[in-house]
Parts: sequence; structure tokens; C-alpha cells
Amino acid sequence: MSAGRAAQAAIPLTLADLEAARTRIAGAVLPTPLWRNDALARDFGVPIHFKLENLQPTGSFKLRGASHKIDRLLARRGQLRGVIAASAGNHAQGVARAALVNALPATVVMPLAASLTKIDACRGLAAEVVLAGANLEEAKVLAERLAAERGLEFVHPYDDWEIIAGQASVGLEIIETLPAASLVIVPLGGGGLLSGVALAIKLQRPDVRVVGVQTESVAPFRRFLEDGTLEVVPPMAHTIADGIKVKAPGVFTRRVIAGYVDAIVTVDDNAIAEAMVCLLERTRTIGEGAGVVALAALLKGKVVPRPDDCVVVLVSGGNADMTLVGRSIDYGLASSGRLMSVAVRVADSPGRLAALLGGVAELGMNVRHVEHRRGELHVPVGMTEIILQIETRDFAHQRELLDQFAGQGLDARNLVDPA
Amino acid sequence: MSAGRAAQAAIPLTLADLEAARTRIAGAVLPTPLWRNDALARDFGVPIHFKLENLQPTGSFKLRGASHKIDRLLARRGQLRGVIAASAGNHAQGVARAALVNALPATVVMPLAASLTKIDACRGLAAEVVLAGANLEEAKVLAERLAAERGLEFVHPYDDWEIIAGQASVGLEIIETLPAASLVIVPLGGGGLLSGVALAIKLQRPDVRVVGVQTESVAPFRRFLEDGTLEVVPPMAHTIADGIKVKAPGVFTRRVIAGYVDAIVTVDDNAIAEAMVCLLERTRTIGEGAGVVALAALLKGKVVPRPDDCVVVLVSGGNADMTLVGRSIDYGLASSGRLMSVAVRVADSPGRLAALLGGVAELGMNVRHVEHRRGELHVPVGMTEIILQIETRDFAHQRELLDQFAGQGLDARNLVDPA
Repeated sequence: MSAGRAAQAAIPLTLADLEAARTRIAGAVLPTPLWRNDALARDFGVPIHFKLENLQPTGSFKLRGASHKIDRLLARRGQLRGVIAASAGNHAQGVARAALVNALPATVVMPLAASLTKIDACRGLAAEVVLAGANLEEAKVLAERLAAERGLEFVHPYDDWEIIAGQASVGLEIIETLPAASLVIVPLGGGGLLSGVALAIKLQRPDVRVVGVQTESVAPFRRFLEDGTLEVVPPMAHTIADGIKVKAPGVFTRRVIAGYVDAIVTVDDNAIAEAMVCLLERTRTIGEGAGVVALAALLKGKVVPRPDDCVVVLVSGGNADMTLVGRSIDYGLASSGRLMSVAVRVADSPGRLAALLGGVAELGMNVRHVEHRRGELHVPVGMTEIILQIETRDFAHQRELLDQFAGQGLDARNLVDPA
Repeated sequence: MSAGRAAQAAIPLTLADLEAARTRIAGAVLPTPLWRNDALARDFGVPIHFKLENLQPTGSFKLRGASHKIDRLLARRGQLRGVIAASAGNHAQGVARAALVNALPATVVMPLAASLTKIDACRGLAAEVVLAGANLEEAKVLAERLAAERGLEFVHPYDDWEIIAGQASVGLEIIETLPAASLVIVPLGGGGLLSGVALAIKLQRPDVRVVGVQTESVAPFRRFLEDGTLEVVPPMAHTIADGIKVKAPGVFTRRVIAGYVDAIVTVDDNAIAEAMVCLLERTRTIGEGAGVVALAALLKGKVVPRPDDCVVVLVSGGNADMTLVGRSIDYGLASSGRLMSVAVRVADSPGRLAALLGGVAELGMNVRHVEHRRGELHVPVGMTEIILQIETRDFAHQRELLDQFAGQGLDARNLVDPA
């Protein structure tokens, strides 16, 4: 770990700096809840807590760093013409709100494909929204040009010591609220949040383990702690965790991660969708894809608590696209036996569909979708294939329906057979 | 209001009683967040706050009353063989957890159709679950019989002064956290929550208006404040707000409501589904149908704040059925222009569907479902009707697609035309 030590030497933040940052932003950010979750604690046999940054007013931790950066800029300059940022979502909202609170004009450059909800959220916070660029990189180039042209301060989303000091307040809150914490799992994109949290924790409690979680398809840090390399991310890489789809990790954040983070793991999109449903059911709060990767890592055994651990799962944000939420719920329902798709072949004669649906109703199931197929190669002539999407109670309930069909001599197959 | 005054005389709870109750349950319940919502405040021009009882550990306020009841039973008897309750959901979980915290055996009788999630939640809290009865009324009869047979204490869900005193802690927290509150909107089923909140508020601040909200199809209190009558609810009445589907209002709660509640309004299921989506997007927390009726009443103008009001919307619970959440999201998306169903007629020749979908993709839209129809009476021979369900940005975005189809000479119609 000599690379790590060398890195630490170049980190210009002390615990006192982090505490000062926290004090400066106290009026602008919410000290978010840190709640123990009974159900998960039972499942894992150790205490599991959620730190819910998705409940921050702008829906993510980004408000902390942005508030601190703007506070520092104002302290140095006295007055500013305004701030500007490039972001497809959470950082834009953080900067917009932090600027609004300080009565400062904010401009946010968002890629053309930015979701209308997020654009509206920024406009609602009085920011000027400039839609430009096919992706975040192009939006950033424009934002830096506009900053120079208009004399605005460019606010970087993560690679800035004052941003990192702001995000560190999450870590300070964790240790203050839950001194027993021994394992803290944190989403990792550009590294601003992980760096801040790791510093806040390790500078006072080096014994607490801090783990970063990336999304499988965009994981530049995958081998970083082992061999110091950064993985090149393919240009078309896709993930539902778009908030941590960061291809160019920070230079400063990298130093902190080298010195203060214990492990980095990855999770795939299916695990992330399941984690979204789990969070919804367990906490009644919503997490966006990037927000729930730490939970996904716990659920999938990518991070395994020790028997005496006291775990904190950081939920970094909740600005989820609602269509994605709907789809994730369906995925979660199917994987837990509450949604089934079944194909049944019946003789192509009147009343057969009605009879079939009658049987489904008797089992207390709810039909969501019905499709009727005939004249296809795999369906014998004189037969019809009916595809039903049904809401069920659990896998045993699904079994009952398949048994009922079998008892009637019907050829039925579950289209999403649980492995 | 002389009926109201007579009723008040028969209410055996003072502000001191309510404060004592709050102290007794302090270790067992969460003082839930009371957060201002910027976006709604902008929309309505007055401060709007949410009191988030959906974030209570069991997902609803019911934990408060149950904890207080059990505390009082133990104080009177010293020891108990156990408690029993009949409930399809939130009250069952509240009783189970309150009993568990006091190391007391709990039995909950749940109707046969109770959702597996809720059954599991009670079992996870160490309660014995008895599945019996076609509905809540039958489950209640059995629970009372079991109470007598086994020497258990029956815990009523709302019509009990000690339960009401427990729920009152929500009202005490509201006034303590937000002394400026002037209008508090509360879901109303059996009346336990509304009675407790109204007492807690009016006994110290008679100037604050308290409004109860019922679900349109189950609204026994609809005319109660006008003429003292209780509406008879049809036996098969249905609502997605099943948590407040209470046909027999309490005798005690009725007295409090007569004396201390300013108005009662109703909202329908569509309004409730929209409110679920609104709550999700605005607070990143989930509310069950019954939990969001107060928000629905605000959104639909059933309760209109005065220009100088400071509003509190009580979200009473978040144990929503996930399949209902998915459906509500789709409804909310459609009503805000983010989901569209369109039927297009094209010549029945190769490549037409591909061309159509190519155009959809160019507009940056996401296709969710495709259906192909021919040989139906309304589709001319030689033509095919294609039905597309598409995710769009807004109504303007939908218009672009319809214009594109029109430009290609295609006959297209929006199946869910916005009014």
C-alpha cells in the first residue's frame, strides 16, 4: 500500500476541514435519515442500516457538494456573476438549488436527451437550462466555453476538493449517528461521494471498512485497488445506473480512493433492478439505478458482512425515471413469483378462453394481459395458444394454476420458469 | 354546532393525556419527518409540507396506537398472555411489532385474500398469523372468539381511546415541528388517526383547520358534519384505498370528529392513483392508496388552501401492493404525456412495420408494446392495424409522432387522447 500512502500525502483535506464544510452547509442540506432495517437485518443476521440520501430535497447527495462549492466561491470572491454546470440530472439539480438558496443565477447545460422531468426540476429551481450536446462530454465542453464567455464559475461534479469536502458530510453524519458502524457500502461513479465518505470515516475511524460499488458495464475502477489501472470503458456502454455512468474518474478522487477505500465491487443491471424493488418494499422510498448499487452489492453477495458487522448501505439518490421504475417492479415481481407468463393450448372452439379465465379467477389471480394465437407453426391446426400474464401470490400459487391446467389435460408452460 | 359541543363533553382525553401517551411510546415509534415540498409549494403558492407516516418502521401510523394500547394493557395488568387483532394489513403489522418490542405473543387474524407480502411482514415480526374469513368482518368475529378462548387481549384498530391517544402523537409532532401550520389534511377510514390528530391540534390550537378525506366509494362520513348522518356503504364497494375501506365508523371517533373536524371531503380512485405518482416523484417515497388521499384532495382542489395558509398533508401509510404501484405509474405517465397508445393503419406488405418503428426510434421514443391486427371488421382488407404503446417525453413529443405519420399519409389515432 505504498502507492496508497503516497496518495494520502497529496490530499489537502483534514478532518477539521470536513467538519468546517459540514457546518457551512448545515442550513442548506438535510441531515438525512439513517434507519435500521428490521427485515434485512433478519435476512443477513447483522444490523443493516440505510443512509437515505434519496430523501435529500433535490433527491440526491449532490446538493451537499454544490452547496459547499458555492459557499467557498462566495467566501473568496464576495460576489459572483453566476455558476454553471454540465449534468444530465442530479448534479444539475444540486447546483441549481444551491445557487437559488444563495440568490445566485445558475446555468445548467444538459444533453439533448435529458429527461423532461429533470429539465423541469432544474427550471423549477430557477436555473437557465441549455439543452446541447449528444452526450455529457459534449455538454461539458459547451459549459466550459459558456463559463469563459459569460464570466461564470464552472462547478465540477466530483473532481474538486471543495466538492469532495461537501460530500464528506454524509460520512460525518454516519459516524455521528451510528458510532457502531463497521462496514459502509457506497455507490461509485466519478468518486466524489466515495472520496468524501471514505475521508470522513477513515480520518477518525480507520477500523471501519469502506467499499465502493460500480455498475458492471461502466467500471473504470474495477482493478484499480489491485493494480492501480483504470479500465477503459467502451464508448457505447449502457447501464440503468446512469448516475454513475462516468467514464473518466477524477484525478483527486482517485488519490483518496487509493488511500482510503478497502474494496471495489461491481453489480449488473438485473441486480440493480431487483435492488430498486427491494428498497421500495423495505423502506418505502425509491432509489434510482445508481442510487441502489450498494444495496445490490449486499443482496447479491458481492459484499459479505462479517458476523459482528454493523452495516450501512448508502442510497445516494432517488431521481429514477418512472418508466424504469415500472419496469423494475415487473422484473422484481416476476423474480419473486408474483407475476407469471404462461402459454396454454386449447381446442379452438367457443367458450374455451372463458373457461380458462374462470379457472384463473377461482384461484384468486388477477389477469393483466391476454393474447390469443393461432395459425402459427408451433401451434397445431385446430388449436389456439393463449398467452396469459397473471398476477400471483407466489411460486406455489403459480404451481396451483399449472396443476389445474394439467388436471384438465391442457398443455401449459410457464414462459418465465424460475431457475 | 351544539351537537359538536355535546360530543366534546363525552371525550375523556385531555392534552395532558395525549402528551403522556406520546412519552410512553417514544422509544417504540419514529418521530417521522415533516418536510416542506418546494415543487408543490410553487404550484400552490403556499407552503406545503408532508408528514411522512409511510416512513414509520411498519410503514404506517398504526404502530403508534398499537404501541400505546399495549403499554396501557401492561401497565394495568402487569402481565398478559398475548394480544390479538384482526386486520388485512397495517394494523396487523403495528400490533405485531408493538407486541414484539414488549416480548409479548401476538396473533393476527387476516382474511384469506390478504396479500402474501403483508402476511410475511407479520410473520417476520414473530406474530402468529391465522388466515380466516372472506373479509375483514369475518376475520374480526373469529379474532374476538379466539381472544375469549385463549385469554388474549383484543386490540381494536381505531375505536378505543387508548388507540386514539397513541395516534394523537402524529398531531403533537406536527404542531411542535411546524407551529405555523394552519391547515392539516388527514386520511379518514375508521377515524382513529383523524380523531387523534384533531384532538392533539385543536386542544392547543383551535385556529388550525383539520380536514378529513375519505375515498369516494366508501365514505360513510360524507354528510356527517352537515347533518349528522352516516352513509350506508354498499356491500360490494371497491376502492384502491383499501386501508380506509371501513364501513362501520367508530362510536368514539365519531364524537371527536363531530366536535373537532372542520370538513370532510372525498376523492376517487383515479385521483388516488395520480397522487401516488405525484408523491413518488415529489418525495421519492411511496404511499399506499389510503395513504395518499389527503394529497389527492389537495391536487384535485377538494381542499383549497387560503393565500396565507401553511399546509400539512398527512401521508398515513406506504404499504402499497407493488402491482398496483406499477399500474398507477402507468396511469400517471399516460395522464402526463409520457406514455401513449397509438393505432396506425399501414398497407399489409413486407417492411411496413420496420419502417414505422424506424420513425419512432428517430424521435427518441421507446416502444413498449407492439400489436399487429388484420382481418378485423374495422380494418380494410389489404391493410393492417398496428397498435403501439410508446414511452414519450410529453404531449408535444406525441404530437411530433402523429405529425410524422400524417406526413407519410398514414391513418393514425391516439387511443388515449388527452382531453
